[in-house]
Amino acid sequence: MSTTRPIGEAVGNASSVAARGKRDSTLSVAIVGVTGAVGQEFLNVLAQRQFPVGELRLLASARSAGKQVDYNGKTYTVEELTADRFADVDLALFSAGGSISKEYGPIAVQAGAVVVDNSSAFRMVDDVPLIVPEVNAEAIEAAGIGLGIDEKPGIIANPNCSTIIMMVAVTPLHRAAGVKRMVVSTYQAASGAGAAAMQELETQTREVLAGKSGKELTDDIFGLQYAFNLFSHNSPMQDNGYNQEEMKMVHETHKIWGFDASGVDKKDWPAIACTCVRVPVMRAHAESINLEFVKPMDEVLAKSLLKSAPGVSIIDDRANNRFPMPLDASGMDDVFVGRIRNDVSRAWRDGAGHGVELFVCGDQIRKGAALNAVQIAELLV
Amino acid sequence: MSTTRPIGEAVGNASSVAARGKRDSTLSVAIVGVTGAVGQEFLNVLAQRQFPVGELRLLASARSAGKQVDYNGKTYTVEELTADRFADVDLALFSAGGSISKEYGPIAVQAGAVVVDNSSAFRMVDDVPLIVPEVNAEAIEAAGIGLGIDEKPGIIANPNCSTIIMMVAVTPLHRAAGVKRMVVSTYQAASGAGAAAMQELETQTREVLAGKSGKELTDDIFGLQYAFNLFSHNSPMQDNGYNQEEMKMVHETHKIWGFDASGVDKKDWPAIACTCVRVPVMRAHAESINLEFVKPMDEVLAKSLLKSAPGVSIIDDRANNRFPMPLDASGMDDVFVGRIRNDVSRAWRDGAGHGVELFVCGDQIRKGAALNAVQIAELLV
Repeated sequence: MSTTRPIGEAVGNASSVAARGKRDSTLSVAIVGVTGAVGQEFLNVLAQRQFPVGELRLLASARSAGKQVDYNGKTYTVEELTADRFADVDLALFSAGGSISKEYGPIAVQAGAVVVDNSSAFRMVDDVPLIVPEVNAEAIEAAGIGLGIDEKPGIIANPNCSTIIMMVAVTPLHRAAGVKRMVVSTYQAASGAGAAAMQELETQTREVLAGKSGKELTDDIFGLQYAFNLFSHNSPMQDNGYNQEEMKMVHETHKIWGFDASGVDKKDWPAIACTCVRVPVMRAHAESINLEFVKPMDEVLAKSLLKSAPGVSIIDDRANNRFPMPLDASGMDDVFVGRIRNDVSRAWRDGAGHGVELFVCGDQIRKGAALNAVQIAELLV
Repeated sequence: MSTTRPIGEAVGNASSVAARGKRDSTLSVAIVGVTGAVGQEFLNVLAQRQFPVGELRLLASARSAGKQVDYNGKTYTVEELTADRFADVDLALFSAGGSISKEYGPIAVQAGAVVVDNSSAFRMVDDVPLIVPEVNAEAIEAAGIGLGIDEKPGIIANPNCSTIIMMVAVTPLHRAAGVKRMVVSTYQAASGAGAAAMQELETQTREVLAGKSGKELTDDIFGLQYAFNLFSHNSPMQDNGYNQEEMKMVHETHKIWGFDASGVDKKDWPAIACTCVRVPVMRAHAESINLEFVKPMDEVLAKSLLKSAPGVSIIDDRANNRFPMPLDASGMDDVFVGRIRNDVSRAWRDGAGHGVELFVCGDQIRKGAALNAVQIAELLV
């Protein structure tokens, strides 16, 4: 595994096979960006799920190097991320931003690792599988990436957090009836912008409660008042008037559902419109999702499909007006789905039967990032 | 004006005419529910807009009677609301909940007053005009209600706050191209549930920041954690899986746009689907609005129509990612509109030209309630 190979070249020599035999017991794991919110959650999830971690290499920027981090009762020292740190690494989990992934992801693959990348750097690259394990695990095998004898190192991309949460909830319905059109509005937590953004929300809330306002507020991350306020998602605006986060949800959904390779006329791909909004919530995203289907679909069928869907918990108690909230999802693995109802506007015009609305919450750091990445890694073991 | 008359009977006798002559200078105004969030804002708005207030009668529950309230530099004592308090009142502004409006609204009308009612009690009653002054002021005249010689006392209903804010933004586009379908997700502030809910949000936020959680939190109003969280709107759930707030937005929109009396086949009425969500924001609502039109409409035409629309301010700065936020709207009269863009999902399937998305913010207490009511009252002067 210490030999460097071109990206995409299958491992076929005897020493590699022998090295890979080791994986039956444990894997050598590197975590890039370990001091961030998602990096920390990588460690939590790996430990909770008893992932077969052997050697553990914790990598971060020079600023964080030397910090002590606990994992499974043992203390590790964070090392500075450099190109030579991936020797003998089987699995590298990246969450340090797109530019770090672009620079070091291919280096890790060259060193023989499978990279699961939480950034957007490679998501839309051909031949890079974009995976939600409950939805399209088979795309990893199709790409030939893995730790087995006949498999090759490579990059597997973790989708955008809002996309993952939506995919877990909507895919069971899409498979049954085909999504024709989807209108989504998000309620996104601070965590999507990292640990510093969560800290800023807390600091700023204290400041507002102490009577501060405007320029007196700490607003290094967003440059806006976040406490008791909300704003359009802070990702860069595209020429079409949608921000990057919104277009990620569109393009990634198409890729995850296989429309980029399906041969279906593009005008018949699911039509998706998203509005992404940052709300003063800590770590779980919510999404209001209006769905139109090709085939018949109603709230009864939708609820029954979701009840048996992997990774889904239902909170849909009309009698007590109790539906998913970010706090229900915080720290949890499942995506929570509720407000499952026939779209009253479709009933109005077309008769019921092809439109359903949902309200969905998922932990942005866990299922939206670290958990999904570790679930991908589990598919490799 | 002290004579009691059946609701709907026009004032025709000489003494009434004489009394009404007084209105050229000032009106005798009663405010019902003056100690609430909207009641207080009635006073602010009347003063700011120099409404011709003559006698001012401040009414509230027995619990609030005796409190001192300032208006225009003069101190008034709050009186207990009883049936005999409406003698000689020209204009009564009600915001004390539906049951108070149902009981005392007709009594005020009997006493000769025009009632502008902020509750939902009479909104969908035939012959009660439901008014957003920028949209359908003419419906008051059509109902024959007013303070003029040939007009009669009666009830004018103030729409639901979320409806008002949406109507101000969407009506200019509807008039130009006809809304075919509208999918709305709201981000609603604490103020919609009253001053006590705003206080609860503040108190609870302090508690969470002090490390409290779960049953330790003050949650008398909503019974849920509101700080750093959000939840489905707390209004009662209907049989169709939509809550009352959502169905108000549907039914009130149809009435305000005149579809209840239009003769247009109901299946061709604008189809409207709403998801109403309470977010931890103090006093301005936001709404993500996806619009499909009968006739051609695009972002250029939409922006130009909105630029000259009454009651609308545009914040739509793509270069700086700056769009309407609740704080922009807080304390302001206008509805703020941004994210004006061609619906990318319609472009995908149908070609651009019939779908537009908007993001809208409006002060729930002002335009969503008190200001709209006072603007209605101004139409009577």
